[in-house]
Amino acid sequence: MENYKKIIEDIYLDLKDVEDTGKIADYIPELAFVAPDNLGINITTINKESFGVGDFEKKFSIQSIAKILSLTFAYKLEGEPLWKRVDVEPSGNPFNSLLQLEADLGKPRNPFINSGALVVCDVLLSHLENPKEDFLNFCKEISNNTSLSYNEKVAQSEKSVGFRNVALCNFIKSFGNIKNNVDDVLDFYFHICSLEMNCKELSQIFLYLADDFYTTVKGKRILTMNEAKRINAVMLTCGFYDESGEFAFRVGLPGKSGVGGGIIAIHPDKFCMTVWSPKLNEKGNSYKGMLFLEKFTTKTASSIF
Amino acid sequence: MENYKKIIEDIYLDLKDVEDTGKIADYIPELAFVAPDNLGINITTINKESFGVGDFEKKFSIQSIAKILSLTFAYKLEGEPLWKRVDVEPSGNPFNSLLQLEADLGKPRNPFINSGALVVCDVLLSHLENPKEDFLNFCKEISNNTSLSYNEKVAQSEKSVGFRNVALCNFIKSFGNIKNNVDDVLDFYFHICSLEMNCKELSQIFLYLADDFYTTVKGKRILTMNEAKRINAVMLTCGFYDESGEFAFRVGLPGKSGVGGGIIAIHPDKFCMTVWSPKLNEKGNSYKGMLFLEKFTTKTASSIF
Amino acid sequence: MENYKKIIEDIYLDLKDVEDTGKIADYIPELAFVAPDNLGINITTINKESFGVGDFEKKFSIQSIAKILSLTFAYKLEGEPLWKRVDVEPSGNPFNSLLQLEADLGKPRNPFINSGALVVCDVLLSHLENPKEDFLNFCKEISNNTSLSYNEKVAQSEKSVGFRNVALCNFIKSFGNIKNNVDDVLDFYFHICSLEMNCKELSQIFLYLADDFYTTVKGKRILTMNEAKRINAVMLTCGFYDESGEFAFRVGLPGKSGVGGGIIAIHPDKFCMTVWSPKLNEKGNSYKGMLFLEKFTTKTASSIF
Amino acid sequence: MENYKKIIEDIYLDLKDVEDTGKIADYIPELAFVAPDNLGINITTINKESFGVGDFEKKFSIQSIAKILSLTFAYKLEGEPLWKRVDVEPSGNPFNSLLQLEADLGKPRNPFINSGALVVCDVLLSHLENPKEDFLNFCKEISNNTSLSYNEKVAQSEKSVGFRNVALCNFIKSFGNIKNNVDDVLDFYFHICSLEMNCKELSQIFLYLADDFYTTVKGKRILTMNEAKRINAVMLTCGFYDESGEFAFRVGLPGKSGVGGGIIAIHPDKFCMTVWSPKLNEKGNSYKGMLFLEKFTTKTASSIF
Repeated sequence: MENYKKIIEDIYLDLKDVEDTGKIADYIPELAFVAPDNLGINITTINKESFGVGDFEKKFSIQSIAKILSLTFAYKLEGEPLWKRVDVEPSGNPFNSLLQLEADLGKPRNPFINSGALVVCDVLLSHLENPKEDFLNFCKEISNNTSLSYNEKVAQSEKSVGFRNVALCNFIKSFGNIKNNVDDVLDFYFHICSLEMNCKELSQIFLYLADDFYTTVKGKRILTMNEAKRINAVMLTCGFYDESGEFAFRVGLPGKSGVGGGIIAIHPDKFCMTVWSPKLNEKGNSYKGMLFLEKFTTKTASSIF
Repeated sequence: MENYKKIIEDIYLDLKDVEDTGKIADYIPELAFVAPDNLGINITTINKESFGVGDFEKKFSIQSIAKILSLTFAYKLEGEPLWKRVDVEPSGNPFNSLLQLEADLGKPRNPFINSGALVVCDVLLSHLENPKEDFLNFCKEISNNTSLSYNEKVAQSEKSVGFRNVALCNFIKSFGNIKNNVDDVLDFYFHICSLEMNCKELSQIFLYLADDFYTTVKGKRILTMNEAKRINAVMLTCGFYDESGEFAFRVGLPGKSGVGGGIIAIHPDKFCMTVWSPKLNEKGNSYKGMLFLEKFTTKTASSIF
Repeated sequence: MENYKKIIEDIYLDLKDVEDTGKIADYIPELAFVAPDNLGINITTINKESFGVGDFEKKFSIQSIAKILSLTFAYKLEGEPLWKRVDVEPSGNPFNSLLQLEADLGKPRNPFINSGALVVCDVLLSHLENPKEDFLNFCKEISNNTSLSYNEKVAQSEKSVGFRNVALCNFIKSFGNIKNNVDDVLDFYFHICSLEMNCKELSQIFLYLADDFYTTVKGKRILTMNEAKRINAVMLTCGFYDESGEFAFRVGLPGKSGVGGGIIAIHPDKFCMTVWSPKLNEKGNSYKGMLFLEKFTTKTASSIF
Repeated sequence: MENYKKIIEDIYLDLKDVEDTGKIADYIPELAFVAPDNLGINITTINKESFGVGDFEKKFSIQSIAKILSLTFAYKLEGEPLWKRVDVEPSGNPFNSLLQLEADLGKPRNPFINSGALVVCDVLLSHLENPKEDFLNFCKEISNNTSLSYNEKVAQSEKSVGFRNVALCNFIKSFGNIKNNVDDVLDFYFHICSLEMNCKELSQIFLYLADDFYTTVKGKRILTMNEAKRINAVMLTCGFYDESGEFAFRVGLPGKSGVGGGIIAIHPDKFCMTVWSPKLNEKGNSYKGMLFLEKFTTKTASSIF
């Protein structure tokens, strides 16, 4: 950990001065209120040491990063048949997504694009009695963190402008790959995306993907080693929308971004790391977050390749 | 190595009896002559120990696997500006490829789809005096293997039916991203794909991607550590056409397939492995090759994730 | 009229014996109940003579034929600015429709594909106090036919399975080209499509497109001559989905089909004709309806070309 | 004719003063040399009266207008089986063309987009001994005009930059829908497009599409009445690329444009008209040509609708 600390601090100081050419996500009205110059970093190693700099203890909207949690829960409950409902292939550029959904008869390309995350929510709805409550409890259990909560305002804000997601969900329903009521699926989806955490909490909650032998405080496994590796693989190939290849190329770690400006990255058997900086590049990923991780893996030679 | 041997032999024996639902590639007339029940496996570790079973010493047409070699050579000669000519993103399903090429104004999505490999050939043509000879010499040097050669019949066979590649090359030329004469680019491309090697030779020639400190017999580096890692990253996200995600998910190693039925896979810091079985699944990758590698990484827990 | 009668009767008798390779539309549950061997034909000339054979007095669901009526009403109320909201170009094959809508930033290609008809409904909602009632009154006025009504069962039936239309309407809304509430637009749309008429009524209600000097019983014009000609032009280029070119080629008249199996065709300055036969060809147009009209225009040399 | 003359002269004078927001086609080097302010108009009625204003006797490159002539010749030689090789549907917006060609397995959407015109040329090559000479003789015969000739410079100029057409032709060949040598098809195609005529000659050569009873000076029919009507139908639905619907909507006549700035329009049973003005709108059709024809058909009420 010690050598990580110095490197993290150095890059943090460098980055403070770098001009941020990104733009804050403003299509969700509530997200537009966040101060654009927040910058937080946190690393947690598999022996549970944690270190953070900057705004690493401020909560933010984790948005699509939550899709790893819903995927994990659905995989745990549904097992391998999950992959009959959603594929594990990168999706090419975004403007093809509806076309591909049509060609693939309603089976989304992967669980991290919106269509796939909606199907994952639908799978969860079929398993859970009280979906929103049960999902929150699952998150609390794996992180041993009881302070997690949805941001109701963000969920409503997203619902008020989420016509594309309504379109997507109905489109998939027309192929029969949404089993529950469309409104229920969307409400669940918007709530999951509204989860709030800070960098430190995020780097802790995803340790189960870094540590092959991770157990909860109650001594339970979240996923088998094989299942965790598979989720890492899907993150590497599909975690950054149309920039997944670029992230693998420049950073070399499995990871996932959210439009709130957060990125988490996993080094199997070593650590989980979070960076948060709200301004996004044109592909929708945190501009400084990408930059930080590239510098970090270069200086520490910690790519998985 | 000793524990790998036993596992390889066991899976090999298993696979001999598995029914092969694949189909041999017959769109290139010359390739259709290969005996479909060939099955060869070879592993070479970074300390240069090598072990093979089955038809691991029979030469076959490596086809698209050669795209790693041309990419390596172009990256070495052109450096980072190479990525202005070709991107590093997975391409989504194949029927979008021309559409994407149009949307991306002639910049191929990655160097392993045909459009990208053609641009890589064009880059090489701009650097080399005698392209076909120089490329062969480069391959001989990195592998310390003087027996390498093109199969002229295969090259001509592919040229005789290669209308799609002619279309692709002219299409990219119309955007200005092919600088040399289209016929020269295609001739070079068809020759590169006609290279013949056996499993053992293949698992040796790609050691420079597994070993961070690899040097040729003359003591020269092929690529920097960082460059090699980047090529591994591109192989992981783009090496298996529309099945790249599936390969990462099931096998968990960077790799590359060819329509001749060969697959190579890299475990960074450990080994390079080749499997050859000519019958292809519907995505164009060796059916038994995929199966072998999935079983192997599961039994040896050697995924990079 | 006399020579038309004989020709119509002859073709009608011929067609009765032709094997119908079409299939009844069954995606709308309520439509699947119609007897598949219905066959009705009616012609009304601009001097208001009318002649019918077969099931020309049985009511059926006119479905997309109603899109001419909603377009007419919206054009009358909105004038030329209507064409800023919806284009007049044929749409190519259907699987591109969402892609094109994305490329065209939510402006549908024409008013006869579903996306365009939804925008037309949205325009009407912005003008009308009681949309469903007002639209019905408009139809009654232009046809001098007080018996027109929606089929509530069909409207509900379509709503229960209309996920694609819900998707489409939300998708367009995401581009800002739907101004009213999505549910209201869809409810109005499904009602319009549920209108029921028989062949005779249909061939009478569209006389305003055949007769340059048409006025209602109250002496009012529906559209200017120029406007009527433009609607005819849009019918010719876009009235038969992905078979519009084929219809122009084989039949040579402006027309419009519906999935209920009806087709209307206009010969400017001469007549309006309706054919009804519920079984559809693979492009979604009445199999025998197309056949009848081809034979009719060939025998009477009444193509507009 | 007399009332046409006055109207034509009036619109001509109006148009001289209208600012031309179009742009001359410069992708074919040789075409860029044409003076942009040329403006010529000619009408020929079916009783062979002809009237022209402005630059109606200057020759220009008719480009895609020649596709009507090659289609006519191929239809005459091949008959109805021609339509198994090329469809008659409008093509939607241009950037889908390759995608559609792939989805339709190499069958072009219509004979007026480049892919379709290439297939028509291929059909002609299969029938003709000396294609270029035979085609020119055919054109001379139907027009009774012995002065027709190819512009070799324009043909070569187009060949030197025609990578897209080379791509297209090879792509179709890969589906088996080009039977002859690709280079021969392209050479023939580029020559056909290089034909030069003036407005007067153009309005005379296409009289066979306006006059149901047209015969050559030797008393021969070019096409049957039914065949001629069908070509008119295809012109109406497909003659103006992605602006075909707009032309039908605004002008209301079958017609065909070329990137040289020419447009011909047919009024069945009445006349054939040519307008030439080299600057093109963004859809690739003559800006003033479209404007002239819209004004003309409005003032003369000569739309076919």
